[in-house]
Amino acid sequence: MSPRTPITYKDAGVDIAAKSQAILRLKDRVADTLGNSAGPFGHFGGTWRMQGPANQILVASADGVGTKLRLAFVMGGDAHAGMGRDIVNHCVNDILALGATPLFFLDYFATGRLDGDVVEHVVGGIADACKANGMALLGGETAEMPDMYADGEYDLAGFIVGSVTEDRIVDGSKIEPGDVVIGIPSDGLHTNGFSLARKVYDLTGDAEHDLPILSTPLANSEDTIGEALVRGHRSYLPVVMPLLDRGLVRGMAHITGGGLTDNLPRTLPNNVVAVLDPTSWATLPIFDDLVERALLSNAERYHALNMGIGFVLVVQSADADTVLSEIDGAVVIGSIATRISVDEPAVQGLAD
Amino acid sequence: MSPRTPITYKDAGVDIAAKSQAILRLKDRVADTLGNSAGPFGHFGGTWRMQGPANQILVASADGVGTKLRLAFVMGGDAHAGMGRDIVNHCVNDILALGATPLFFLDYFATGRLDGDVVEHVVGGIADACKANGMALLGGETAEMPDMYADGEYDLAGFIVGSVTEDRIVDGSKIEPGDVVIGIPSDGLHTNGFSLARKVYDLTGDAEHDLPILSTPLANSEDTIGEALVRGHRSYLPVVMPLLDRGLVRGMAHITGGGLTDNLPRTLPNNVVAVLDPTSWATLPIFDDLVERALLSNAERYHALNMGIGFVLVVQSADADTVLSEIDGAVVIGSIATRISVDEPAVQGLAD
Repeated sequence: MSPRTPITYKDAGVDIAAKSQAILRLKDRVADTLGNSAGPFGHFGGTWRMQGPANQILVASADGVGTKLRLAFVMGGDAHAGMGRDIVNHCVNDILALGATPLFFLDYFATGRLDGDVVEHVVGGIADACKANGMALLGGETAEMPDMYADGEYDLAGFIVGSVTEDRIVDGSKIEPGDVVIGIPSDGLHTNGFSLARKVYDLTGDAEHDLPILSTPLANSEDTIGEALVRGHRSYLPVVMPLLDRGLVRGMAHITGGGLTDNLPRTLPNNVVAVLDPTSWATLPIFDDLVERALLSNAERYHALNMGIGFVLVVQSADADTVLSEIDGAVVIGSIATRISVDEPAVQGLAD
Repeated sequence: MSPRTPITYKDAGVDIAAKSQAILRLKDRVADTLGNSAGPFGHFGGTWRMQGPANQILVASADGVGTKLRLAFVMGGDAHAGMGRDIVNHCVNDILALGATPLFFLDYFATGRLDGDVVEHVVGGIADACKANGMALLGGETAEMPDMYADGEYDLAGFIVGSVTEDRIVDGSKIEPGDVVIGIPSDGLHTNGFSLARKVYDLTGDAEHDLPILSTPLANSEDTIGEALVRGHRSYLPVVMPLLDRGLVRGMAHITGGGLTDNLPRTLPNNVVAVLDPTSWATLPIFDDLVERALLSNAERYHALNMGIGFVLVVQSADADTVLSEIDGAVVIGSIATRISVDEPAVQGLAD
């Protein structure tokens, strides 16, 4: 791993003086995420001192932002910082789905020609989101590959490690028929469905062509289409962790690529199914607009998009009211039933 | 994180039946890396049960393969598996430089259009190298972004987590004047200097143009230029860990981007310098050829290339003979001296 020092920027062969300012500003923001457990920045690896009991379970995940990046290429400015916040929150939610508390994060930023301002926006957004989730930004790799990436374009991946003790891990194994499925709202597409959305709105990646489309008002909304599409990926850590502290959750699903259809089954035991009622929650204008423009069938929309539900909890029916009362906008979206045969789909009610 | 299940491949919109075969073969090889500490594959995150005492220090690193990938795009076949092995070994060496033993690895593979065979080669190579280093391949993300990557091209990043106990961490702080600097040979460029090498050999990325160049015999070698360039990144874990077990090492450096010039200082305290003698070790024909063709000054060659030294150990002079006798090809390449002023370069003897 290359430390984020002038080395990286020197290799970019661009104005070192201008860069140095960006680096200094970044280093402060990165250092600001490092708690007592994190070691010095810039060695061959980032170091993290484990706290608490032995035999803890580490939970790790890797993910990318995907084609949502192309919106930032066109919109620029804070949209770049948004990509940084998105990848952090996406990763936080993934390990939260197993009950893990985030410990540290590393990023991989690859671009054609290093632009100091863009790096500062993106890595700054990552640092801010790490701090907001109580996690250290332990390091990252900044790669410059002119032959691979077009000027002004970059790819962004994130790696997270969290921990959970054996007695607190939530893997869905305790889920049983009669349990209640609770949905927590998303703020938009989060980081999935953008290949579809870009087709639907005819976004080509050419700023001159795309910006007028992105600045068009979205139906039944105060947002423009661009504002609604680029809206950030929410971290569910602050609302879900207090419930986990009290053992109120039996299973969780982070609704990402594959939607409710593919993600909810990941926490369900083989002997149950989740029967959902898609009329039980309000979607968002951006989803309504996408569904209407692309004439998406139920099967398609709940597979390609989160359709307004970003995170799902499965709880005992006796705990449902408590959970609902504590999470803003949470609604019952279905229930758990016995699975008659393995041929039965694990998630039901979303087909046409 | 998306589990490596048909979901990923289904989204690729290509022949599922053909893919399924690749997935099954891949899953076996991945499962083969999972020891008792690793949890089931395919949940929202990969799980790892910590062993041993509490308060261990985790060491994490993120890295990419860089433009060496473009050789695999042209050469194909096992060269793809080589990219997988390279990123694993690169990451293993990075955390080894702090004394850490690898625990688990995750990868990020991003491409334009998912090719099942290429994914099997790359991820298979990753799985094999993880197993060889006694580490679990805990998960990864496979992203398909047609607008970002050209057909047949991909980017590859790796993320590693290892552990070390406080008493065994090696951060160079004990290094003092009189200590000996020992170099361990590299097998080639490893994963750095390829932008330079591709310029020198006029490699454009077009197979028809590049293959004749890559199949040209390398001077003073039985390799072709292609064979020498694509040669794998060595893991130094098997030769170095036995020395760490006996406390024989005071500082380590993994010689990657920035060469000896930039990497050796990362383990040196501020009050010492390393005085190297570049005539003390034999380079490899590929480095001689690059230096001759590009007329690289000393300053340039030791910054852009590892020049035949892939990993460096700093040891007490009394331990030097023991260390030299146990590592095949290891040589004394310099010594540690007092730093008179902070203006003094931390590494000396490599300038012209």
